[in-house]
Amino acid sequence: MLNERLNWRYATKKMDPSKVVAQDKLDRILEAVRLAPTSSGLQPFEVIVVKNAEVRAKLRDAAYGQSQITDGSAVLVFAAWDNYTEARIDDVVAMNEAQRGESDALTAYFTNLKSNYVGRDAEINFEHAARQAYIGLGLAVTAAAFEEVDATPMEGFDPAKFDEILGLSLRGLKSVAVVAIGYRDADGDWLAGATKVRRPMDQFVTLVE
Amino acid sequence: MLNERLNWRYATKKMDPSKVVAQDKLDRILEAVRLAPTSSGLQPFEVIVVKNAEVRAKLRDAAYGQSQITDGSAVLVFAAWDNYTEARIDDVVAMNEAQRGESDALTAYFTNLKSNYVGRDAEINFEHAARQAYIGLGLAVTAAAFEEVDATPMEGFDPAKFDEILGLSLRGLKSVAVVAIGYRDADGDWLAGATKVRRPMDQFVTLVE
Repeated sequence: MLNERLNWRYATKKMDPSKVVAQDKLDRILEAVRLAPTSSGLQPFEVIVVKNAEVRAKLRDAAYGQSQITDGSAVLVFAAWDNYTEARIDDVVAMNEAQRGESDALTAYFTNLKSNYVGRDAEINFEHAARQAYIGLGLAVTAAAFEEVDATPMEGFDPAKFDEILGLSLRGLKSVAVVAIGYRDADGDWLAGATKVRRPMDQFVTLVE
Repeated sequence: MLNERLNWRYATKKMDPSKVVAQDKLDRILEAVRLAPTSSGLQPFEVIVVKNAEVRAKLRDAAYGQSQITDGSAVLVFAAWDNYTEARIDDVVAMNEAQRGESDALTAYFTNLKSNYVGRDAEINFEHAARQAYIGLGLAVTAAAFEEVDATPMEGFDPAKFDEILGLSLRGLKSVAVVAIGYRDADGDWLAGATKVRRPMDQFVTLVE
């Protein structure tokens, strides 16, 4: 069932601006991202959902003019925490305590985590956060496929410009990846209907048994 | 449907060694990882599937003794390319040409990609590859949930020791994340049945409309 959806999807190159993704579909896609597993449950990223036409035009300009950004219904910008801080981790601890109750094990776990993460090189922490954001990106693309909605994961953009356009730096966020959400314009998309290319299983998986 | 499965799953802390994941389930989980979207379709990682008991015991020792590694049915080690090389990208080009036919656009795309990636700092290339591996990790966990199989994504291990145990360095691979696959021992698992903790949507998503 999942693999049928993964075979259906593809990185849509041309979207049809006349077709709008329904809000309930977009909501379920975002919920999948929210439910994504992340390291220690930190969820060290946020998603900026851009529908505004003027802002999307600016983002397109900062993404080599890729038309899916304006032809789709929304753009999801995955923005990772620029660093781990005591305050950010304390918020996660408070949320865990509120929902699961306080416990010595929980306190000890996150005290240890803070001693490992806070004060560590910011670039290492950002890269760790960025990896978690990519789990979310994968789930956004997967969730879109379940909604029969097309999605284009993108890295071809200028992160510094995206951060500026969306005011992310002041919030301690850095854009790492984008997913355009919409409906394919199959006639205008050279990639629609193309064979999915993947390495064969025996070149991708090694079995140690 | 997807979100129901994501709500079902959790990072299993204790697995039941007497229950074995059927091979067809494991095959579908691996197929989901193989189908995962990756940047430019490079699939810059491999999956080492470890069933061997002695090897898993060594891996457990290099992962702070986490019991899921030996109590589950298999361990998936996600190993990212340590760098982008001309040969690796040429293999992807050849695979694309074989399955979609040769084209000037395809040649131009990957020629440009090689000029950007090959020769770039190896650490930057590895981090880029590692992010793609995390898309695969997310799909492994999701696919397991569809199979009603438990899965534990893990970062708490010594990558250098994993690389040595599995002989990854010689293959130009570096372990970045692990997913243990098996069945929960609900009675022995403090996390089984616990409330799933996630930031509320309004603290996770910003809408620009």
